[in-house]
Amino acid sequence: MPELRKDLLHDKWVLIATEQALEPRFFPINRNGTYVRKDKVCPFCAGNESLTPPEIAAVRKDNSAPDSPGWIVRTVPSKYSAFRLEGELQEEQQSGIYYSCNGLGKQEVVIGNSDHSCEFHHFSLERIELIYRMFKERYQALASDPRIKYIQIYKNQGLFAGASQEHSHSQIVALPIVPLHVTIPASYYQQNQKCLLCTIMGQERENGKRIIYESEYYILLSPYASRFSYETWIIPKEHKEHFGGISEREISDLARTLKTFLNIMLDSLSNPSYNIVINTGPINGVSAEGAHWFMEINPRFIITNGFEMATGYYTNPVAPELSASLFRQRMLENDQ
Amino acid sequence: MPELRKDLLHDKWVLIATEQALEPRFFPINRNGTYVRKDKVCPFCAGNESLTPPEIAAVRKDNSAPDSPGWIVRTVPSKYSAFRLEGELQEEQQSGIYYSCNGLGKQEVVIGNSDHSCEFHHFSLERIELIYRMFKERYQALASDPRIKYIQIYKNQGLFAGASQEHSHSQIVALPIVPLHVTIPASYYQQNQKCLLCTIMGQERENGKRIIYESEYYILLSPYASRFSYETWIIPKEHKEHFGGISEREISDLARTLKTFLNIMLDSLSNPSYNIVINTGPINGVSAEGAHWFMEINPRFIITNGFEMATGYYTNPVAPELSASLFRQRMLENDQ
Repeated sequence: MPELRKDLLHDKWVLIATEQALEPRFFPINRNGTYVRKDKVCPFCAGNESLTPPEIAAVRKDNSAPDSPGWIVRTVPSKYSAFRLEGELQEEQQSGIYYSCNGLGKQEVVIGNSDHSCEFHHFSLERIELIYRMFKERYQALASDPRIKYIQIYKNQGLFAGASQEHSHSQIVALPIVPLHVTIPASYYQQNQKCLLCTIMGQERENGKRIIYESEYYILLSPYASRFSYETWIIPKEHKEHFGGISEREISDLARTLKTFLNIMLDSLSNPSYNIVINTGPINGVSAEGAHWFMEINPRFIITNGFEMATGYYTNPVAPELSASLFRQRMLENDQ
Repeated sequence: MPELRKDLLHDKWVLIATEQALEPRFFPINRNGTYVRKDKVCPFCAGNESLTPPEIAAVRKDNSAPDSPGWIVRTVPSKYSAFRLEGELQEEQQSGIYYSCNGLGKQEVVIGNSDHSCEFHHFSLERIELIYRMFKERYQALASDPRIKYIQIYKNQGLFAGASQEHSHSQIVALPIVPLHVTIPASYYQQNQKCLLCTIMGQERENGKRIIYESEYYILLSPYASRFSYETWIIPKEHKEHFGGISEREISDLARTLKTFLNIMLDSLSNPSYNIVINTGPINGVSAEGAHWFMEINPRFIITNGFEMATGYYTNPVAPELSASLFRQRMLENDQ
């Protein structure tokens, strides 16, 4: 079983695979910046269903059988996951000052289409809605396990976003502990008796300089302290603690807004790699007071270097006010 | 002037260039994983001295003139720095809850040789010693400014280590604030009245599984919670708070040990990109109690993905015990 080990010098958890080590030749990248493909045949393409572990859930046409072609959206356990949903969370004192947890948890992969070459932003609105419905379904299923305290949904698109597979996909990780930064809005709430993200939205609306767009249910903005150039947040206007509570109407609005924005972003920025991460509140007995779910879209132009690694300070050569102005103009043109 | 803006959601400072934005076509990488060179002519090669700002310090042969060829090691201000050493540190309340600091500080580049194609691990021992003497000289010069509270020395080697120039070089950044993680050993000291790194070294020596090598002045080990696969630390055996206090004998031992280790690491791992960062104690009125300088060598095989970005949890597919065993064996063979 893998371990979560505490890095005492940086106050971070590190997930360590103690059972089997990757050899350097199997790492996803090499120095020349080319992919080292783990699989010669793509395990996410139609017809290759046997290359993944058995599917957990799927949207299928024509009553096609599980683990056969005919699916529209398919969820499978991650083949390379370091997590296992077995037993109880155990924090163990290791020799002296070290301590670790067992890798209790679950990692799933949501494959949003069976066509290798079609990327997420080219998917139909209906397909994007199906994917977000799948996220909600899996979120709720994983949240029903009381050992799970946090659910992380994310997407890595492209080599420089850390994607190890070229075929478009997203991932869901169910964790037995709550990441440190998830507790920041809770601290803010305890000190100020109000939601940090609602406060930020209020200020941004008054100021206007970093607002990109407002849809029926969401605000799109460039955050004041953007860590990534052209970083964009999609925030539900109404205070909602958990992504898992998203309604049908909110899913439709999100799919439409996200598809439009991604196409504009990728076109404006010459098609960079990007990550989408969904921040949400903790669950199952951990207070979600002050939590407000939101989505980050982070294009990846710059590789973390030694300065960021050592100091924790990100460097962003593009002011968020400029980023917002570019995207605002193009979202406006798109509406007309 | 650039700003350090506080990212309230992640409790991090972000250095934002508010004066001029990079256009996407000038970013160092593109989606296909190839360098977009900022300069067609390398500004770090002999003969191109006019392409950098005037030099701050240099080791030169034959009394050659500043900013002309004939140098062995050369230090220049960073052309793309977001820091300026002007005025006083000012924390400013921005609208509402936001706040920022001005980008007070200084960023310098140390060019360790004039030959574009020769990488650091191929440098002679004498040259590596000259580079570390230059680091010490610049550390002490920058530390003499009372506005500076922390000095970060680091090296980015290769595309996947975030290097924007191919020509081997290192960087020194003088900061007016102390990075958050630098305060962790101080907290440990206050609670336990002992040095965290000395405690770790003591345990590692007893256990032995993660020790790679001991030289006269240094221990090399794979840290218990290695964030990067094959991450290696070089720690002074004696408790020393600041890198700037390194002696001539310690520089010689460090140069020899580092050169040997880097050659073994790069050969064992098929020549990956890597970062070297020097962690050291805060200065100029900020207590360095519990600080113990050390060096991290981090090979870069995996690009940060959405999971690490969102949760702050690193994933490492190579157990440090395996990494240590590989390097220990080869360091031993080298000694025989």
